[in-house]
Amino acid sequence: MAETTLQQLAEHTGGRVVGDGATIITSAATLEQAQPGQITFLNNNKYLPLLKTTRAGAVIVGEELESVGALLVAKDPYYAFMQAVVLLHGHRPHKPVGMSPLAQVAPDARLGDNCHVHNFATICEGVIIGNNCHIYPGVFVGPGVRMGDDCIIYPNAVIYDGSVIGSRVIVQSNASIGQDGYGFATHSGRHHKIPQIGRAVIEDDVEIGAGSAIERGTLDDTVIGAGSKIGDMVTVGHGAKIGPHCLLVPQVGIAGSAAVGHHCMLGGQVGIVGHVKIGNLVKIGAQAGVINDLPDGASVFGAPAIEADKARRAYALIEYLPEMRKRIRKIEKRLDHCEISD
Amino acid sequence: MAETTLQQLAEHTGGRVVGDGATIITSAATLEQAQPGQITFLNNNKYLPLLKTTRAGAVIVGEELESVGALLVAKDPYYAFMQAVVLLHGHRPHKPVGMSPLAQVAPDARLGDNCHVHNFATICEGVIIGNNCHIYPGVFVGPGVRMGDDCIIYPNAVIYDGSVIGSRVIVQSNASIGQDGYGFATHSGRHHKIPQIGRAVIEDDVEIGAGSAIERGTLDDTVIGAGSKIGDMVTVGHGAKIGPHCLLVPQVGIAGSAAVGHHCMLGGQVGIVGHVKIGNLVKIGAQAGVINDLPDGASVFGAPAIEADKARRAYALIEYLPEMRKRIRKIEKRLDHCEISD
Amino acid sequence: MAETTLQQLAEHTGGRVVGDGATIITSAATLEQAQPGQITFLNNNKYLPLLKTTRAGAVIVGEELESVGALLVAKDPYYAFMQAVVLLHGHRPHKPVGMSPLAQVAPDARLGDNCHVHNFATICEGVIIGNNCHIYPGVFVGPGVRMGDDCIIYPNAVIYDGSVIGSRVIVQSNASIGQDGYGFATHSGRHHKIPQIGRAVIEDDVEIGAGSAIERGTLDDTVIGAGSKIGDMVTVGHGAKIGPHCLLVPQVGIAGSAAVGHHCMLGGQVGIVGHVKIGNLVKIGAQAGVINDLPDGASVFGAPAIEADKARRAYALIEYLPEMRKRIRKIEKRLDHCEISD
Repeated sequence: MAETTLQQLAEHTGGRVVGDGATIITSAATLEQAQPGQITFLNNNKYLPLLKTTRAGAVIVGEELESVGALLVAKDPYYAFMQAVVLLHGHRPHKPVGMSPLAQVAPDARLGDNCHVHNFATICEGVIIGNNCHIYPGVFVGPGVRMGDDCIIYPNAVIYDGSVIGSRVIVQSNASIGQDGYGFATHSGRHHKIPQIGRAVIEDDVEIGAGSAIERGTLDDTVIGAGSKIGDMVTVGHGAKIGPHCLLVPQVGIAGSAAVGHHCMLGGQVGIVGHVKIGNLVKIGAQAGVINDLPDGASVFGAPAIEADKARRAYALIEYLPEMRKRIRKIEKRLDHCEISD
Repeated sequence: MAETTLQQLAEHTGGRVVGDGATIITSAATLEQAQPGQITFLNNNKYLPLLKTTRAGAVIVGEELESVGALLVAKDPYYAFMQAVVLLHGHRPHKPVGMSPLAQVAPDARLGDNCHVHNFATICEGVIIGNNCHIYPGVFVGPGVRMGDDCIIYPNAVIYDGSVIGSRVIVQSNASIGQDGYGFATHSGRHHKIPQIGRAVIEDDVEIGAGSAIERGTLDDTVIGAGSKIGDMVTVGHGAKIGPHCLLVPQVGIAGSAAVGHHCMLGGQVGIVGHVKIGNLVKIGAQAGVINDLPDGASVFGAPAIEADKARRAYALIEYLPEMRKRIRKIEKRLDHCEISD
Repeated sequence: MAETTLQQLAEHTGGRVVGDGATIITSAATLEQAQPGQITFLNNNKYLPLLKTTRAGAVIVGEELESVGALLVAKDPYYAFMQAVVLLHGHRPHKPVGMSPLAQVAPDARLGDNCHVHNFATICEGVIIGNNCHIYPGVFVGPGVRMGDDCIIYPNAVIYDGSVIGSRVIVQSNASIGQDGYGFATHSGRHHKIPQIGRAVIEDDVEIGAGSAIERGTLDDTVIGAGSKIGDMVTVGHGAKIGPHCLLVPQVGIAGSAAVGHHCMLGGQVGIVGHVKIGNLVKIGAQAGVINDLPDGASVFGAPAIEADKARRAYALIEYLPEMRKRIRKIEKRLDHCEISD
């Protein structure tokens, strides 16, 4: 943990101080839990009342909010908060273990400078890894895998043969990359396995969540685009293409050969069927089921997924179905009566 | 496997015998498969007809049911059945392997009495583990993890640095605890990783299912309350608080900063969005999508989730939407005619 | 990679050639990416326009399609394509590593001929494995597991004690088989673990996807029938029976004691509640929630799941709920007016 002043933090994050810039800040905490000496942030209006009661040394807020206590006013308060946390706490340090004698590294594997391979990790033949990578215990890096610089592969993650991993990629524990796609040819009631000869390609700056599973392609590659962040227990099917800078939160499922553009946001448990094309900058609400192509900038939710504004009103009305049905029945009776009375 | 009599079992479980208490019971089986010498139970009226055909030595039943064969009548038949199975079969025995020479244990790690660390397990620096714990092959216990007594960590489970595990905790295979939360600050189209400095705290008597993933907190801890049972492939987001004695069955997803009270039951594939507050004793049906706070004792299902009784009727009517629409159209025509005829 | 001619491929797959049978084929690729010398296939009419622009050496098509370029006409083009890919590329080769000195194999474990156990794999006491099996690094094979011939168990998969694995079974990375079922008896607000004394039985020719979790039974076995293919992150609850030759695509969840017949197809993220009976040849659409028994040949989707044709029309109408409600209100007003004018 570092120690800094509010003024220094403001300069570091490009914000400005309201209150005493000399306030000492040593760490970060939540609005509810922060004590003097700690910085916190407000990013969700739901927590606005806590601004009055927080004991925090300072609060990072957006530009529209400048009334209380010591503040660090930032254009993008969550981003400024991220910078503050990195400055004060840093990212997880990785112990420089070098090459553990208990790791199994193929003689022809080539690793760059400053790589650390922990005990019980396996690096197979033909693997090429760049500089500054950390391979944690129990990781399996299959034959012919190529990996860039500055990657962190957490315990028991498995990277199958021939997968391509960019630089600054983080793979959390128990994730699988490049396992066989779900590809079977059904003939006379039997399902025959199709060799999956495509690869899984994970581009630069991607993070893959714990327990996720990114299939290799049947023929062409499965691709996770640069800068995309994949949550826990997400599955991406064979040949699917996720564009750059997407957010796929936990438990999303993308079926084979689907294509997702850049800067898309997929909520929890979203499902996308195979072979559909999702445009750029698309937002898909939690649990949505997407069965059709979506244009750039679309915002949808529901299963089946429909335009978000429409969906908000429509799905809320399911609750009123019994009432609506009763009203229809009543109308029919009134109408019967009305017609008879004619 | 033990051998006992029906009378002894009744005493052991606090029930009473109908029929011959001297019946020898050696093991447990299902109503359909049980043979003489085996005990079984009836807990679901769906299986009531099997009572007449079962060959079981005895059946554990509730108090309202006393007509057939040799019975063990119990106030809580499923609980009595559990006691019978524990008596007859016991829990899985764990081989006392001691400290495997093929495990990697940091010199400064402190383990209590009667701990067993299998081959290929990694116990990192600063770890403190209580007594009678079993750490199976391939398990990773990260730096600074604290663990209580009588824990069982099954193969290839991964516990990240700084996580806190109570006593009598069971972690099934390939589960991840304390991996980084899904926390990114998006700025100018790039997603910047926020150091996740909170912890994952697993309280006493919790069980975590195979392949589950419990994120560490961004700032404050993610907590799984005492006695809660987490199924397979459940994900709990950063900073979420699950109260004590909850049941989260497989594939549930809880987003970050959500709070769930005590004694809640969440069905399969339930999703809860971030920052909502679920009360105590709440029941959430399978596949429900919860997007709002829920009061104590609420019972909901559906996506979006609504009050269960309402939901039962409402969601069943989706099927009738085409019919309802047709009837509306017909009414409009009749009305047109009716008005013209005026 | 092999080299062959289009004519040879046609003979190999039982199809026939349209165009030049002497065309040399060396590998397979997609319609979009295939170059001269590569074979591809058309199985989805969505990609029909690509037939005119593909540079592929030859295309495998169904019998109704015979107009363009060099074709291999097959009764079952996807099956013929599978045969072609196997011929040209083969399945993944598995390095014959023998028994790694870094594996931990119990003295009384019995392995057949030509088995390969990689470093950091654990084979416990009483295990019996047939011939030609590959056990990859980090795999755990628990006490008393029985496994047939020709199995491939990928890295870090975990097979619990007493599980039964048939022949030609493939288990992808990080999958769990035979972990404890989600079985607790709740008594006075506490959840008591019920020993799970049933087994997980995986029959011949089954494939289990990455990160999947197949629970052992409480009393009787959980069974995955012969030839069934289980996708990534699928969970099957204790005592559930999946019949032979089923397809369970990724993220499906089957609750305990459910029974699924033979040749069923379950789409992504489908959920099936406990104790229901699904017939044979049933198709269940993605994200469906099945809460009732289904007869042979049923085709359903939606949550709750209803008959597919009905569901297609009904779920599409949710979008029109606001409009329908407005129309009902309007009708009521017209009717009020109509009755008054009477």
